[in-house]
Amino acid sequence: MSTLKLIARHKNFNGFLERYQHDSDTTHSIMTFSIFRPSNANAKQPTPVLYWLSGLTCTDENFATKAGAFEYADALGISVVIPDTSPRGKSVPDHENFALGQGASFYVNATQNPWDFNYQMYDYITKELPQLIDNNFPVTDEKSIMGHSMGGHGALMIGLKNSNQYQSISAFAPIVNPCQTPWGKAAFNTYLGPQADKWEEYDSLSCLSSAARKIPILIHQGLGDEFYPNEVNPEIFVEKAKRLHFPISYCPVKDYDHSYYFISSFIKEHFDFHAKYLK
Amino acid sequence: MSTLKLIARHKNFNGFLERYQHDSDTTHSIMTFSIFRPSNANAKQPTPVLYWLSGLTCTDENFATKAGAFEYADALGISVVIPDTSPRGKSVPDHENFALGQGASFYVNATQNPWDFNYQMYDYITKELPQLIDNNFPVTDEKSIMGHSMGGHGALMIGLKNSNQYQSISAFAPIVNPCQTPWGKAAFNTYLGPQADKWEEYDSLSCLSSAARKIPILIHQGLGDEFYPNEVNPEIFVEKAKRLHFPISYCPVKDYDHSYYFISSFIKEHFDFHAKYLK
Repeated sequence: MSTLKLIARHKNFNGFLERYQHDSDTTHSIMTFSIFRPSNANAKQPTPVLYWLSGLTCTDENFATKAGAFEYADALGISVVIPDTSPRGKSVPDHENFALGQGASFYVNATQNPWDFNYQMYDYITKELPQLIDNNFPVTDEKSIMGHSMGGHGALMIGLKNSNQYQSISAFAPIVNPCQTPWGKAAFNTYLGPQADKWEEYDSLSCLSSAARKIPILIHQGLGDEFYPNEVNPEIFVEKAKRLHFPISYCPVKDYDHSYYFISSFIKEHFDFHAKYLK
Repeated sequence: MSTLKLIARHKNFNGFLERYQHDSDTTHSIMTFSIFRPSNANAKQPTPVLYWLSGLTCTDENFATKAGAFEYADALGISVVIPDTSPRGKSVPDHENFALGQGASFYVNATQNPWDFNYQMYDYITKELPQLIDNNFPVTDEKSIMGHSMGGHGALMIGLKNSNQYQSISAFAPIVNPCQTPWGKAAFNTYLGPQADKWEEYDSLSCLSSAARKIPILIHQGLGDEFYPNEVNPEIFVEKAKRLHFPISYCPVKDYDHSYYFISSFIKEHFDFHAKYLK
């Protein structure tokens, strides 16, 4: 179990936003994450945890500074954990394409050289990070997961593959079938190799069929989104989820784009949604 | 009257955040500003306007992305105008010190060469910009002003010097007597020359004595602010304002720092304050 090093702390609404670094055994690199700790959280009153997975090029700071989320997290008594989108550092492989390498892990366990040594983000998000959070902060074992774009893919995929570990899933403008969309195909080819049958296990559309539980899902999609429907196309996912009787709510919203202005406009609805399942 | 060029538009809560550029006759440069237009604003239903002045190094985008303000602006039906903190461009003088030159106008009309040709921000904020807003958007003639740090200085100074043109003033961690604090003295010396008696007209502490009207004022100050009390020290201003019977509320708040996390935590209170005076 690695040691957490506090690198920043800001009073925010009534709670604190803290930023930590640690040596990760999983990604063989220094990882950074942020955590919002609501004002009512303490050892006698632990809180559930909502994980946020960010999109391409983001760090843990984009959501923290731009989403306007912590007013609601504080009011509802939910801790929010925001991991980075990939391992980083001089020794970590990178790529000139913004949609590959650092800032673009796609939350998979890479199998291809030179990515496989560091890019084990699926294991980091599902195992090492929650264990660190559970051991270092006053939290219950109830957790949910949400994300945006590449992080919407991550949230849906991880929540469906571990539907008994998460209470609920939500996504803003998610990539839902990366096996078929341009950024997703490039990433999966790079991290998982050219055999497309190895990609399915990380494709949310496929994961719907194998989920152990019909986990509740909420998705918002801006209809003015510059990446819709070429990269982010939730309708195909929503149709299949409904066919399989998942409790899913889909909210297409006119004029909103792919930015954090869209996220901040609906983040309260996502907190209210998760709060129903995080007791 | 210069022509506005729309350079970005984002649906945000129920309104739109728009970003414009125009050739400024006042600053002899291209100026950029953002405006939030609430959903209920139209020619038949014009709204009052709240001006936000940002701090050192900011552009019009910092407040727009980080303050979490537009939920409240939309609900209250208030347009929000966010100017840049200085003229910018290759032909505009700059300085290696972040607290001078581009991003650091201190909202004065410079009198010293080479600054005086472009750095006429007092006239830009009080004359050219409001005229542009009045002529291009569905707004009433009711306006208020607020700001942060250097922009808190700007809001207090401009609001006091024009107390019949603004309904109310508010500030987060404002510089209140730039004649006496390090950043302020360096800026005033640079823009206004070494004669300190020429500085008084832009010092909020001095402007309190000459204000035509006892305009309502609200100030928040984080007590964990890294620039308090060396650069931002509202107490001396608050004491004098109370002595002169201004209706002023001062809220020192424990642990909050100088960041936008502090601003976002209290921005709702500032909107509610201004809404009382903006009918």
